[in-house]
Amino acid sequence: MTPAADTRWVKHIALTPPSLGDNTADADRLILALNKALGTTTMTIGLDQLQPLPEQLRQWNYQVRAVTFKVDRTTGSLVHLTAGDARETLCGLAVDLGTTRVVLRLIDLETGQAMGERVFDNPQISVGPDVLTRIHYAETPDGLTRLNRLIIEGLNTQLDGLCQASGIQPDAIHLVAIAGNTAMTHLLLGLNPRWIIREPYIPVVNQPGVLKAGDLGLAVAANARALVFPNVGSYFGGDLIAGVLYCDMDQREETAILVDVGTNAEVILGNRHWMMACAGAAGPALEGGVTRMGTTAGPGVIDRIRIDPTTLAFDIHTIEEKPPRGICGSGVIDLAAALFRSGMIDIRGKLRPERCAKRFLLKDELAHLIVVPASDSGTGADLCISQADLDSLIRSKAAMYTILETITNSVGMAQAELETFFVAGTFGAYIDPQSAITIGMIPDLPLPRYQSLGNSSLGGAARVLSEPDCFDRVKHIRDGITYMELNVNQEFMNRFSAAKFLPHTDTARFPSVDVPGNGGPV
Amino acid sequence: MTPAADTRWVKHIALTPPSLGDNTADADRLILALNKALGTTTMTIGLDQLQPLPEQLRQWNYQVRAVTFKVDRTTGSLVHLTAGDARETLCGLAVDLGTTRVVLRLIDLETGQAMGERVFDNPQISVGPDVLTRIHYAETPDGLTRLNRLIIEGLNTQLDGLCQASGIQPDAIHLVAIAGNTAMTHLLLGLNPRWIIREPYIPVVNQPGVLKAGDLGLAVAANARALVFPNVGSYFGGDLIAGVLYCDMDQREETAILVDVGTNAEVILGNRHWMMACAGAAGPALEGGVTRMGTTAGPGVIDRIRIDPTTLAFDIHTIEEKPPRGICGSGVIDLAAALFRSGMIDIRGKLRPERCAKRFLLKDELAHLIVVPASDSGTGADLCISQADLDSLIRSKAAMYTILETITNSVGMAQAELETFFVAGTFGAYIDPQSAITIGMIPDLPLPRYQSLGNSSLGGAARVLSEPDCFDRVKHIRDGITYMELNVNQEFMNRFSAAKFLPHTDTARFPSVDVPGNGGPV
Repeated sequence: MTPAADTRWVKHIALTPPSLGDNTADADRLILALNKALGTTTMTIGLDQLQPLPEQLRQWNYQVRAVTFKVDRTTGSLVHLTAGDARETLCGLAVDLGTTRVVLRLIDLETGQAMGERVFDNPQISVGPDVLTRIHYAETPDGLTRLNRLIIEGLNTQLDGLCQASGIQPDAIHLVAIAGNTAMTHLLLGLNPRWIIREPYIPVVNQPGVLKAGDLGLAVAANARALVFPNVGSYFGGDLIAGVLYCDMDQREETAILVDVGTNAEVILGNRHWMMACAGAAGPALEGGVTRMGTTAGPGVIDRIRIDPTTLAFDIHTIEEKPPRGICGSGVIDLAAALFRSGMIDIRGKLRPERCAKRFLLKDELAHLIVVPASDSGTGADLCISQADLDSLIRSKAAMYTILETITNSVGMAQAELETFFVAGTFGAYIDPQSAITIGMIPDLPLPRYQSLGNSSLGGAARVLSEPDCFDRVKHIRDGITYMELNVNQEFMNRFSAAKFLPHTDTARFPSVDVPGNGGPV
Repeated sequence: MTPAADTRWVKHIALTPPSLGDNTADADRLILALNKALGTTTMTIGLDQLQPLPEQLRQWNYQVRAVTFKVDRTTGSLVHLTAGDARETLCGLAVDLGTTRVVLRLIDLETGQAMGERVFDNPQISVGPDVLTRIHYAETPDGLTRLNRLIIEGLNTQLDGLCQASGIQPDAIHLVAIAGNTAMTHLLLGLNPRWIIREPYIPVVNQPGVLKAGDLGLAVAANARALVFPNVGSYFGGDLIAGVLYCDMDQREETAILVDVGTNAEVILGNRHWMMACAGAAGPALEGGVTRMGTTAGPGVIDRIRIDPTTLAFDIHTIEEKPPRGICGSGVIDLAAALFRSGMIDIRGKLRPERCAKRFLLKDELAHLIVVPASDSGTGADLCISQADLDSLIRSKAAMYTILETITNSVGMAQAELETFFVAGTFGAYIDPQSAITIGMIPDLPLPRYQSLGNSSLGGAARVLSEPDCFDRVKHIRDGITYMELNVNQEFMNRFSAAKFLPHTDTARFPSVDVPGNGGPV
């Protein structure tokens, strides 16, 4: 009954009862009011909703609460109808459909407030940890069906748990918004993803639009609708569109950049007038590059490292401050930055034995650095990082930097002109921008320009459920993005080679980074 | 493969196969082409259609035939997809959903040609012959369900028979268009019609739009769509909208009138700029009036009568020239006109015993005219018409004329200005306009202005299936009609009283009718 509710998908409608002077049909009367409330010109009502309508309207004295949704800019749907004074909670479910992790957020559709959240591993991990393994598995007999069932059943189990925790029934969920990458979206929809990974890289669909949640197999309200975020292409998915929505890039006058490092590195640059995107998986030099760093974050995993440049003492922080048992991506970047600042690696990222001293180790003829000796570790063994790990990090950070350089160059912008640099996801939440700048992974911008977005995929999905205006923006964002194929040509490779140094061959680009002399401070 | 096909719902599409330079997703590629072909901006494809799509497109070399349909002016649907060179017949089914009779017409969606037709009694007749009885029955327990099943099962049985006769399977039917009155439409959709007959006369829905045929229970193709013609209101149904479409009233510059005398008398007057409608059931003076004449047409039923003004010999024609066993509506009008011309009834429609001579009979103190003596009849008894029947006819014709006068008056038109007078349905097909003019049922226009439309409800439904442009016109027609409540006030009653004479109190309105003197020619 709050006036604010009318800025949401739930509309409180007081219909004028029919009279001889106004004998509009019941459904048409409701449709007129809903179109007015929603700003649409067409409104669909299912046959199963029409059948009880005349008795409902009369019983409710023509006072109703309606859950609405859109199909497109001009067409709305009646999703659920209840008495104007009914007390039932009307919910929405936002889903971040990650390759590794899935996050659900339950939302009160009338207040727009979050009612609860739940995180779980994507059950398809049992088939394979990465997109490629799953796509290949989908080509085996019943593989696609099995992958589809894994995620749908996983979602149903978890949403049921989330509902129980929030004191509602799953059939109180009337709207669902799902943002995931192109491959995960295909598996969710039961669509064969085989052509995504084969030249010329064709998804089955880029704009699945709004579907009946029941058609997807989701155990929510019978007439619930699900918006599946559209993809730009095989390597630029709905999770990124949700990210753009979440950070309002499509409405800002100033140019911003959004970087999401998840399964791939995806970058989008733009403002309210234009948007340009590219993805790191497009070039063979980058394959798996950015992500092949460290282990998944969890208790005991090192996420912060400082090295005292004088004493070379390591100051290590672990998640939940448990004994260290591994190192995650942000920890590896911190480590590399600290090693570089303290002269323990050189500008090529190579371990300097004399500087590493007793932390240096040769295992199977490969140089290693002992990050945590066995005596202090949570595993009982030395926690090491190998030269190969560091080389991989260098390629990753060079790839990242080269993509950023390429996309800004493509629109004739200097990196220094970027007013806002959004970093999405876990990467954005944990990374220390100063460390990433130190190793030359991201440009040397003033730190306040870096903004961590958190789970922008979930955030964007949730906004669609609480702000109807955002619905139209989703398609507008998608259609407004120019996808730039990363053309791995000689120029790209030259840039990439130049970026394989710490912080960069051209140190003038990183004035804030104090590049140690060849011998380094002792 | 004929070029003409692209003016129909079946679109032959040659897609450009994907390439690195054009990696649009499969579905989006198809949607783009379909939107272009159909002139829509949004195109919906079901999840079950997306799933096989990538393999189909590759197997078919991106050459497809698509059955499309619309949801509204801007939104299309993919209904069925097949290979460009597939030979399957793609069919549509037009349905005239009459209270008494239902007519089906099977249409080849590619050529627009009729493949076959089938007429059957509305199976709801077993519950009650008229709308009112059925609406009351719908209020009894399970009554609505039973009525709904009767018509759906009847349609399924009959369409199955029609398909067999045409050598196709019912799942070759992809589009259905159904035109019926408001009550029949409600029963078809399983909607409670109780509020239609209660003040202020509110249908559940006026614009059911396009539904999945399967949701209606129709046993046609799984994804078939059904357009249920919209109603203007409780007493002006989709059958009339179909009639307007069929006679192109909405596209004509000159004003025409369309009269449909079925269960009620419905009249629509207009041109491409405006349309005004009214229905005879709106006023208590007219209730059942127009229709309470004669028996249903069938073999042995008298449909034409002439009376020699000199010899007073009756010249009778029966349907299929079987021995006479009854008289249908058009026969009654012919009879009344002939009786009047020959002076056997007076200007009030009263039988004149002296002129009727041995054909005159008193039964239960009520005057009767023997139309066919027992010796010549197919029943072995005299076929009579009573004074009460004639009185009823007079009221009916007066009602009809008054409605026509009222609607033309309402727009300031003289009846003589009507350039075209369309008469729909069985009434239009069998009635002799000269007889109807003689008794003053319809205005005294030059005969060529009268055009019999035949089954315009079926014709309009069929046009929607063969001419996509007609789809948009349906809503446009509905929204463009101003429904005029027949206000049964003193002025109306005065007009009605004046029209209760043959042909009219004001004989100047019927210059072509030779009004016999009071004594009449002997």
